[in-house]
Amino acid sequence: MLTFVGLGLYDERDVTLKGRDEIADADAAYAEFYTSVLPAAPIEDLEEFHATPIEVLDRDEVETGDRVLEDAEEKDVVFLVGGDPMVSTTHTDLRLRAIERGVETRVVHGPSAATAVCGATGLQNYRFGPSTTLPFDDHDGWAPDSPFERVADNLDRDLHTLVYLDISDDGERYMRASDAAARLADSDVDADVVVGVARLGSDSPHAFAGTPDEVADHDFGSPLHLLVVPASLHPVEDEALRSLASLSKA
Amino acid sequence: MLTFVGLGLYDERDVTLKGRDEIADADAAYAEFYTSVLPAAPIEDLEEFHATPIEVLDRDEVETGDRVLEDAEEKDVVFLVGGDPMVSTTHTDLRLRAIERGVETRVVHGPSAATAVCGATGLQNYRFGPSTTLPFDDHDGWAPDSPFERVADNLDRDLHTLVYLDISDDGERYMRASDAAARLADSDVDADVVVGVARLGSDSPHAFAGTPDEVADHDFGSPLHLLVVPASLHPVEDEALRSLASLSKA
Repeated sequence: MLTFVGLGLYDERDVTLKGRDEIADADAAYAEFYTSVLPAAPIEDLEEFHATPIEVLDRDEVETGDRVLEDAEEKDVVFLVGGDPMVSTTHTDLRLRAIERGVETRVVHGPSAATAVCGATGLQNYRFGPSTTLPFDDHDGWAPDSPFERVADNLDRDLHTLVYLDISDDGERYMRASDAAARLADSDVDADVVVGVARLGSDSPHAFAGTPDEVADHDFGSPLHLLVVPASLHPVEDEALRSLASLSKA
Repeated sequence: MLTFVGLGLYDERDVTLKGRDEIADADAAYAEFYTSVLPAAPIEDLEEFHATPIEVLDRDEVETGDRVLEDAEEKDVVFLVGGDPMVSTTHTDLRLRAIERGVETRVVHGPSAATAVCGATGLQNYRFGPSTTLPFDDHDGWAPDSPFERVADNLDRDLHTLVYLDISDDGERYMRASDAAARLADSDVDADVVVGVARLGSDSPHAFAGTPDEVADHDFGSPLHLLVVPASLHPVEDEALRSLASLSKA
């Protein structure tokens, strides 16, 4: 049996009661933190909290997946993922290969930034177009344009965009919302207001809305960060950004 | 203090450890189940599980919100919501009125169908356009076209659509995925494949994919149900629908 367990957004207490019990009952626990991380729960804390060893796999080990799949053929294995599992293609691919091998699979869901961002900003979920991810601009100076094309495309349709910010494969580096806003300001995207969000799921998430230049100059503090590019604001959304994200534009 | 706590998808064990502790520490607990319900956790079960009385509010009581807000001025109040709070405008509006009164507010996030549907179907989150809700077709025969316009609009852009299905205000009636597929089949939307999903978050969620007519004839069992209208399928998504949702088309 292979059970994917979503760990949620921020620390070890963002897992559901179902997820906690699945981890406690498992024979072996694996995790990956390159698609998503718990910024306030390093692996040592998770192992202590759940009183079980957790083997962290790198991208290659997850994409081949052999050890996890062989283990899951014999034992009850949990695979721990930040946020809600299956938002990343990698996990779906691993699950399908488990099913091919005759391994029973299950998913225990967790809170995800995709909906939590509505709580931090007051922007309405049904007005979000497809999300995108902004990768680090450090591949020999190469930076893909497609994330901003997705944003422009959503703006043309009066849809908000959630922009996930890159995490390094070793989970050590996080893109800042201010850096993402600066890159947006340098792009062809014509956005009056952007919203940076930090530490979703913590007791003190931080949201700040302003022009791309204002957000580029804002210090959002510790990770994780996200950027939201809103389309036109409904009255409740406008009031929410003023109340929750210090929006001050006329 | 007013803390919105997401209860998650299916039963009383879909709440996070943070959410459970917030409920335990609160002086008063309110809930609403007309925007979202826990199909396997009636209010009596929730009260027993959390060992606290929970007052369920109807739509009018939430939209005025006076009792909750007065209580929250004096005490630590939790407001319990299925899924992840703040996905519904109603909760954002209540939160903003609390802030206006000087009440501190917080959100404890929970798993949401918006991302869990990716786990049940293998469809990729970043390919979903804006979602929509299909209301009951029983308002004196009046049925709004806009949900299907949203679906058609997403299909034109090669984006999937998550269609939430209506819940009666008393939380007693749920629209079936088969009925929603039948209405889609009768609409102008040209969809080759639709996917019905039932009981997200349970140990045995059920997904079935086929033509709108095939899905209209399928028995999805007990609630809650959702309908997904996929755009073009990437190879992994096609394989996932065959493996997870019995898709059999050539």
